Amino acid sequence: MRHSSSAAVLFVSIALLICSQGLLASQPGQSASPLTAQTNDLTSLVDIQKYNRSIHIMAMLLVGFGFLMVFVKKYGRSAVTATYLLVSVAIPVYFSVKSYDIFGEALSADIDKFILAEFAAASLLICAGAALGRLKMVQYMVLGVIFTFVYMLNEWIVTGGGFGLVKTGFADTGGSIVIHAFGALFGLGVIKTMTTSDEFAQPIETDASSDRFSMLGSMVLWIFWPSFCAALVAPELLPRTIVNVVLALCGATVATYFASIVLRKGKISIADIANASLAGGVAIGSTCDHASHPAAFLIGLLAGVVSTIGFSVIQGKLQSKLKCIDTCGVLNLHGWPGLMGGIAAVFVVEGINKSNQLKGIAVTIIVALVAGYITGKILSAFGRKALVYADSDEFADAEA
Amino acid sequence: MRHSSSAAVLFVSIALLICSQGLLASQPGQSASPLTAQTNDLTSLVDIQKYNRSIHIMAMLLVGFGFLMVFVKKYGRSAVTATYLLVSVAIPVYFSVKSYDIFGEALSADIDKFILAEFAAASLLICAGAALGRLKMVQYMVLGVIFTFVYMLNEWIVTGGGFGLVKTGFADTGGSIVIHAFGALFGLGVIKTMTTSDEFAQPIETDASSDRFSMLGSMVLWIFWPSFCAALVAPELLPRTIVNVVLALCGATVATYFASIVLRKGKISIADIANASLAGGVAIGSTCDHASHPAAFLIGLLAGVVSTIGFSVIQGKLQSKLKCIDTCGVLNLHGWPGLMGGIAAVFVVEGINKSNQLKGIAVTIIVALVAGYITGKILSAFGRKALVYADSDEFADAEA
Amino acid sequence: MRHSSSAAVLFVSIALLICSQGLLASQPGQSASPLTAQTNDLTSLVDIQKYNRSIHIMAMLLVGFGFLMVFVKKYGRSAVTATYLLVSVAIPVYFSVKSYDIFGEALSADIDKFILAEFAAASLLICAGAALGRLKMVQYMVLGVIFTFVYMLNEWIVTGGGFGLVKTGFADTGGSIVIHAFGALFGLGVIKTMTTSDEFAQPIETDASSDRFSMLGSMVLWIFWPSFCAALVAPELLPRTIVNVVLALCGATVATYFASIVLRKGKISIADIANASLAGGVAIGSTCDHASHPAAFLIGLLAGVVSTIGFSVIQGKLQSKLKCIDTCGVLNLHGWPGLMGGIAAVFVVEGINKSNQLKGIAVTIIVALVAGYITGKILSAFGRKALVYADSDEFADAEA
Repeated sequence: MRHSSSAAVLFVSIALLICSQGLLASQPGQSASPLTAQTNDLTSLVDIQKYNRSIHIMAMLLVGFGFLMVFVKKYGRSAVTATYLLVSVAIPVYFSVKSYDIFGEALSADIDKFILAEFAAASLLICAGAALGRLKMVQYMVLGVIFTFVYMLNEWIVTGGGFGLVKTGFADTGGSIVIHAFGALFGLGVIKTMTTSDEFAQPIETDASSDRFSMLGSMVLWIFWPSFCAALVAPELLPRTIVNVVLALCGATVATYFASIVLRKGKISIADIANASLAGGVAIGSTCDHASHPAAFLIGLLAGVVSTIGFSVIQGKLQSKLKCIDTCGVLNLHGWPGLMGGIAAVFVVEGINKSNQLKGIAVTIIVALVAGYITGKILSAFGRKALVYADSDEFADAEA
Repeated sequence: MRHSSSAAVLFVSIALLICSQGLLASQPGQSASPLTAQTNDLTSLVDIQKYNRSIHIMAMLLVGFGFLMVFVKKYGRSAVTATYLLVSVAIPVYFSVKSYDIFGEALSADIDKFILAEFAAASLLICAGAALGRLKMVQYMVLGVIFTFVYMLNEWIVTGGGFGLVKTGFADTGGSIVIHAFGALFGLGVIKTMTTSDEFAQPIETDASSDRFSMLGSMVLWIFWPSFCAALVAPELLPRTIVNVVLALCGATVATYFASIVLRKGKISIADIANASLAGGVAIGSTCDHASHPAAFLIGLLAGVVSTIGFSVIQGKLQSKLKCIDTCGVLNLHGWPGLMGGIAAVFVVEGINKSNQLKGIAVTIIVALVAGYITGKILSAFGRKALVYADSDEFADAEA
Repeated sequence: MRHSSSAAVLFVSIALLICSQGLLASQPGQSASPLTAQTNDLTSLVDIQKYNRSIHIMAMLLVGFGFLMVFVKKYGRSAVTATYLLVSVAIPVYFSVKSYDIFGEALSADIDKFILAEFAAASLLICAGAALGRLKMVQYMVLGVIFTFVYMLNEWIVTGGGFGLVKTGFADTGGSIVIHAFGALFGLGVIKTMTTSDEFAQPIETDASSDRFSMLGSMVLWIFWPSFCAALVAPELLPRTIVNVVLALCGATVATYFASIVLRKGKISIADIANASLAGGVAIGSTCDHASHPAAFLIGLLAGVVSTIGFSVIQGKLQSKLKCIDTCGVLNLHGWPGLMGGIAAVFVVEGINKSNQLKGIAVTIIVALVAGYITGKILSAFGRKALVYADSDEFADAEA
């Protein structure tokens, strides 16, 4: 009961935060718009096209990230429930905080604010993937609240001129750095604390059914990735952007197959295919609206190889060294390919301020690692999950 | 053979109905439009944006409702097949009947007529969920034909001024009342007859695989729910509407987790998560284009709690009392939250005619219950399913 | 190692082909567009609406075709991996070749080129479905490269006036002939060689889990089929087109149920439902923007019956006769209904040049069968899969 009462406190405070803030800040800008708008005008048509992309992103968040994490055999119910809760915490928190002038100027356009909130939720899901199976549901939600604030801080510093550290012009349209690398490195900080020695020794089981669900998640991410990268891109740049993203994904998928067969000595791993195929989407993020098509394809190829090396070679060594487990391998899918994509912008984007780009990357790395480490300490104060990688300690109707 | 011959008669009559009616009524209005339309004009762009939403709704109907119902372990093939058949009966029937001046004026715009037909199919799927596992495939189809006509009648009375009973201005944009509550209460009427005492005693089995499929259905419904509510909303009201729907869903999801852990005494139920998380979408339907964001979030919170109480407390008692089984718990997901949403409009929508709103709700309750009860009697004339909650009596290739 | 080195050669050559061609041809037309475009203009809005449909098609390619093929119990990982690889080979190859004046004039519009590339990938996936479970991953990729070139050749001859054989005006908007029938008949050519006598005797196992995944794939195809047929249709014809496709699918779904119960003597087959329900979409392709609604519904009804007869009666006899296995039954779903749809245009499309239409169909049949047969011979030079219909010879982490 201690458990649920502390949880209830958290819950009420989140709810009040959101309602009060939304009440004060979010409505005025919003309710004004229908008064001035003319039906059928072009602006609202463009907004509705953004809205279509926001729905695509939501499919990535829930079915995409959610089912990609169902690869843990006995933890499927928990993985999708955690996904639901993480998204349902991050979006209202981001949306209402962004209605104030806290991290940069308040935004009044609902659709833009909603899409930015979805980006935050994506980054959070990446982060949570690192600790998947070792957090209680309440810990996922606490992580959600803390993460969203730090994410907004970093987003503001790197892309909004916060504290004057990074100048405008930081190239990261599709979020290779501020979404993917940030989430993965934050997760690395968290798992430093959130892996006990027992948990470190515990094997993670999969089976044919969980593997197929995981591939479903992977494919949903692949399908809608162009909408993710192009969500806020101007209409006339959209065709080039989405073709670039598709070409990068194609490149990564083919490269992953060959890298996996070579690195695993003759047999491929379905985990490589499900994950590293997406590394093209991660890496093209920073340059998706600037790269030429061949450059996009090449970035995808490289990202697929880098990610597969991560899964098959680096992960094992790094985990042994750091004594922590990255359950979903988010460093391999979002970490290295994300950083690679951010650096690629230096070579691909014409007229870019190179030192500024590198400074933004460095800031993101530092903020993510430090904040993640502190957050891990905070989470550990909420105790440890009774049965790791299993539904049965939290779900009434689950097999033991 | 008696079976398939009576079925064939039904089939031919549906086909003839549709073809003849479509032939006479649906084409003229339709074929005129290309003649007068100018390529690239704004009207057709707006229509295409509606079309995008119609596809989203179709994803909800098939994968959403279909897979949400796959939670019954040995009845998965039947659940998705029934979904296919129910949709494939309801849409052509609604579409062709709506081409005549039977229930209100005939509609000529194809996309609007198609979206309204999808709404009818959604309501039908809700209704069928109550009796899931106890109907033969032919009975689902007979239910589909009868239900669609009664649905159109109620829709016309409540939202189209039919018989002069309810004045225009009934607030129900996203269908809390005419789609959700109507379907659930119609289902309650049906199961009064369509639960034998043997069926009442029969347990309904689930397992890890069917639970994950069910969560997939749930997530698909969650993702596309904004498109459902906003399907026919004017472009300039769309941003506010969809953010309201997302906030209501977020509120319901978080509330469901806490309500489940409290009401189930420490362990949550995956059935609560899969279902009650969606109650926010059900309840926001009536007010989605009018509510402020904080009101939407609050409606979602409340709906999540109400729905979870329904699943964990009310359902057991009600079923014992009425001696009938609501297989999917549609009363808890669509019934109570739907009614709650319709009543919420009285407090949320400015300038609403309160008694008119309540009258529309009352009419819907009465029509649904009475027609559902009669329909249950009709269905029982087609016999009883040999093996309840199992594929093997109707599918050649299913495990016993 | 011989295996992976030969594979690497293939890989590098594909990559070089794509990068070089894209570099030379694809960029100029593309990079010019942002310079001349005005934000918010109608043309780019129409382009973005095409882009939405291209995402829908991608969902069909990956989750739709991919999971429809997961019905083979022990081959699920391979089926979805093969889908990833086939799509990732076909799209870049088509896209870069189409940037040259090889098969007809080069296209400069990125979105149109991308959608045409997706059509090629769809046809390829159909073809691969015939040989599913008997090809190694490398063979799928080799098939992908060869198929895409032949597909482009046939597309050019039949719809682009290539060699002056077929005049313009060939009715095939949604690809009943050039996409569906072509893919299926090419597959028939391939399996003539790619079925050994051992493979012919090997049974193909399914279970409840693989059947549900397969139905998921089927439903995703059903949902997005209107976007497939209407992808390149002019805005003002879109409403009629998509309603026609939905009506055809509804007709096929209902017809499949009744045909299955009659032809299978009382019990339906889930394979019939998952596949033949889609035959309406296949058959309406040629006439989707011309047919009246009742004609569309009738074409769907007929296609469902034809396809179910294919699965329950024709397939067994044909396979015994030809001593080859069509794993997914693509002839029944895409072959006969595709040809039926192409021929239906002769009766449905006003002012059509009938002999021209039949000539286009004949050319497609001949090109597909001959090229498929030759391609099968080429594929057999790459050896035989060690364990047919099983993941375990190619995947490290699969059950034996």
